[in-house]
Amino acid sequence: MTTSDLRDELIGLVGGDAATFYPDHNTDDLHDESLHVTHVEPFAVLRPTSTEQVAAIAKIADVHDLAITARGSGTGLSGGATPVAGGIVVSFERMNQVLRLDTNDHVVVVQPGLTLRELNAHLSASSLRYPVYPGELSGSIGGNVNTNAGGMRAVRHGVTRQHVLGLELVLANGTVVRTGGPVVKSSSGYDLTQLVIGSEGTLALVTEITLKLSPTLANAATILVPFASLDSVTRVVPTLVASGLQPSMLEYLDVRTMSAVTSAASLELGIEKAVAERALAYLIVVLETRTPEQLENDIVDLGALLEAEGALDVYVLPEHAASRLIEARERLFWVSKDAGVKEIVDIVVPRSAVPSFLEEVARIGARHATSITGCGHVGDGNIHLAVYLPDDGERHVLMRELFVVGLGLGGQISGEHGIGRDKQEHYLALTDPTVLDLERGIKRVFDPKSLLNPYRLFDERLAHDDALAHSLKE
Amino acid sequence: MTTSDLRDELIGLVGGDAATFYPDHNTDDLHDESLHVTHVEPFAVLRPTSTEQVAAIAKIADVHDLAITARGSGTGLSGGATPVAGGIVVSFERMNQVLRLDTNDHVVVVQPGLTLRELNAHLSASSLRYPVYPGELSGSIGGNVNTNAGGMRAVRHGVTRQHVLGLELVLANGTVVRTGGPVVKSSSGYDLTQLVIGSEGTLALVTEITLKLSPTLANAATILVPFASLDSVTRVVPTLVASGLQPSMLEYLDVRTMSAVTSAASLELGIEKAVAERALAYLIVVLETRTPEQLENDIVDLGALLEAEGALDVYVLPEHAASRLIEARERLFWVSKDAGVKEIVDIVVPRSAVPSFLEEVARIGARHATSITGCGHVGDGNIHLAVYLPDDGERHVLMRELFVVGLGLGGQISGEHGIGRDKQEHYLALTDPTVLDLERGIKRVFDPKSLLNPYRLFDERLAHDDALAHSLKE
Repeated sequence: MTTSDLRDELIGLVGGDAATFYPDHNTDDLHDESLHVTHVEPFAVLRPTSTEQVAAIAKIADVHDLAITARGSGTGLSGGATPVAGGIVVSFERMNQVLRLDTNDHVVVVQPGLTLRELNAHLSASSLRYPVYPGELSGSIGGNVNTNAGGMRAVRHGVTRQHVLGLELVLANGTVVRTGGPVVKSSSGYDLTQLVIGSEGTLALVTEITLKLSPTLANAATILVPFASLDSVTRVVPTLVASGLQPSMLEYLDVRTMSAVTSAASLELGIEKAVAERALAYLIVVLETRTPEQLENDIVDLGALLEAEGALDVYVLPEHAASRLIEARERLFWVSKDAGVKEIVDIVVPRSAVPSFLEEVARIGARHATSITGCGHVGDGNIHLAVYLPDDGERHVLMRELFVVGLGLGGQISGEHGIGRDKQEHYLALTDPTVLDLERGIKRVFDPKSLLNPYRLFDERLAHDDALAHSLKE
Repeated sequence: MTTSDLRDELIGLVGGDAATFYPDHNTDDLHDESLHVTHVEPFAVLRPTSTEQVAAIAKIADVHDLAITARGSGTGLSGGATPVAGGIVVSFERMNQVLRLDTNDHVVVVQPGLTLRELNAHLSASSLRYPVYPGELSGSIGGNVNTNAGGMRAVRHGVTRQHVLGLELVLANGTVVRTGGPVVKSSSGYDLTQLVIGSEGTLALVTEITLKLSPTLANAATILVPFASLDSVTRVVPTLVASGLQPSMLEYLDVRTMSAVTSAASLELGIEKAVAERALAYLIVVLETRTPEQLENDIVDLGALLEAEGALDVYVLPEHAASRLIEARERLFWVSKDAGVKEIVDIVVPRSAVPSFLEEVARIGARHATSITGCGHVGDGNIHLAVYLPDDGERHVLMRELFVVGLGLGGQISGEHGIGRDKQEHYLALTDPTVLDLERGIKRVFDPKSLLNPYRLFDERLAHDDALAHSLKE
């Protein structure tokens, strides 16, 4: 079969308007939001509209040994969904429907290309919400599943993993299987749903997702709390989590990050000058309750707790300012990018280890004569650091040092962004070889030819070899 | 090597007081609480005290192709941990320590033989608890992990799966690996922790478990609610879950089960005679809050909701009666066993499908001229049915009908007990062959010789062939 025959077959399958071919791609389809974009040209970018089409694509790819990269909205931050030269990109852009909303069972069944914003809009008429809240609302649910996305509400509600009840999958050979279902618990065989969540597109193509919803809590308050040191803000967190107040968000920002966030959004939060001058870090706490009375009581108790723990002041933000602050915080990645950030870290450590971790981060920064700014989901111990050091070689050394410190404290390399290609070298170097072997074995079970997002995670061939591999013979 | 040499090697490893050999076993070590005990004699029952000993046992078993059955407290209900003839039972009875309690991170690290009762006792001095609440407190944490145990508090707090952050595992070849860690989120490779949870001892020997704890809620109320029909009690559940009241327990009992529970415990709940005469089903709701004020408000709102939904009355039980009722409910399995129950079902269906499911159950019972009584974690759609039909063949047909109905409603065969040997034939017949093949493939990656709890789940050789296999040559 010639390349031209293959092109015709794929067009016949999805339609001419749903396919582009090398060299006529839209470059927007070829990368995510990683800071390290490399330009790789796949053979085809396809936009199927059904599971049947996805299965047929997988069968064709299997016959011709073509790599497949699943693509949601391309909002990933780790280079997880970058194409393989000569391979196929399956974009789920047109598989973006809500298939079923069950308000009795608190379950919604969606296609992978649906964005969080679209899901939220669909749910807004109900009294339910999908509580997981990764900042980027244009991200797709399929992408959320493949990276096990987290975000600001994880401290109370958990991450994607805790909200996916079932999946429909297209395997590498084109077989369609269903895992789990619209039930909240099961002890009926291996949990393949959980295995696929966070697998970064390497095990199967996710074509349908059953999500657990929860009742929207009608009463909310956002509390902004300045502290005199980074250390004091991170040390208050365990007490706050232990209080039983169950904050829906528990974020910290160091003073430089806070300043970047507010000035980029021209946001005036009304913090007294004397307090602002002493503040070196901020805590943002969101409380959500069923009743207004409970919210009032919780705010009073939270205020007392924070003052006892050394807060400089406690501001209950007006609703408008609160939503603007959260939005501005969501946009932080773009602010950092504009400022020339070279790496975004999302190490997770045990909550109580955050102070030690940040002390060590400051030491590492000082050693490399660069300042590392940060913020993060401090209630989860999930810290986002912005690294600006320009020299590639030295930055690689610095990054490795950060990961080693994080792992040494009982943490993990990535709390929510995934390994992708950006962190893969570190992941390979720092993960127990036995674990890597188990992962490779599981990969072979699902995808014996390694066609689905190859060269990722445990694959020693590494992402930078992409361009050498899988190039389709003309 | 002779059998006698092997025996000496194993005694040298764990000590003579920690080993028994065929035919001198204590029969208590050879079965769980399944209603279908078959007597199978392993070669050895060993009680190691360390991960190193477990790893050494696995290496020996690997060399001699001996099956290994992991054993916790033997409280399983599905025949999941029954020995293999000629194999080794690894009992975790002596690996029952709390290794580390971190009240800042809300994390506890335990050995698998620790019982829930022992864990609760250890935590009682702190302000934290392990919120998962399977009825049987003598069950081991290792057993809970291997069956993904659920229980009464799952409706609010989730099941075991949502509380295990990391594991230490001994693989079939004796290699020790760690998965996850004391962090609440991670997107760093395949989630092997989740894969092992619920795998019923078939993938690895779990030697250490890191659990997530949560703050104890100091204020609790147990509310007993009689309804005039089974249907009305199950129909109220979605409304209750949607209310945002977040009950910690949401149980139903049909009138016959309630009567069995209360009379076995000589429990007088103070229900008015006129109400009791009309009641055909009961709901038990437990509310837990941070403050007494919130509890009072929640009780008022719950009462209003229940009365609007047709409750015959609403009783807030005195603390003593409440704890006795919950304890009596926990002991229901034993009451049913004394009454001659032949099968306990733990099918899970979508919450809103419970009324249809129970209608169909009644129809199936009528067709087989037997009455099927029930209760269950109705907030999760997890229904426990007691089947008394004596004829083995007809009961097998009836069971298959129940599973088919449950699966047809979007459910799963087991919500929390696991498949074990008791439900394996049904599981094999009713599960997508592609899913079974994926499971077999994963099993081969972890345990290529199929030595760890062989013949379970996807294994077509089925449990009743145990006795034929793995018999050690003298």
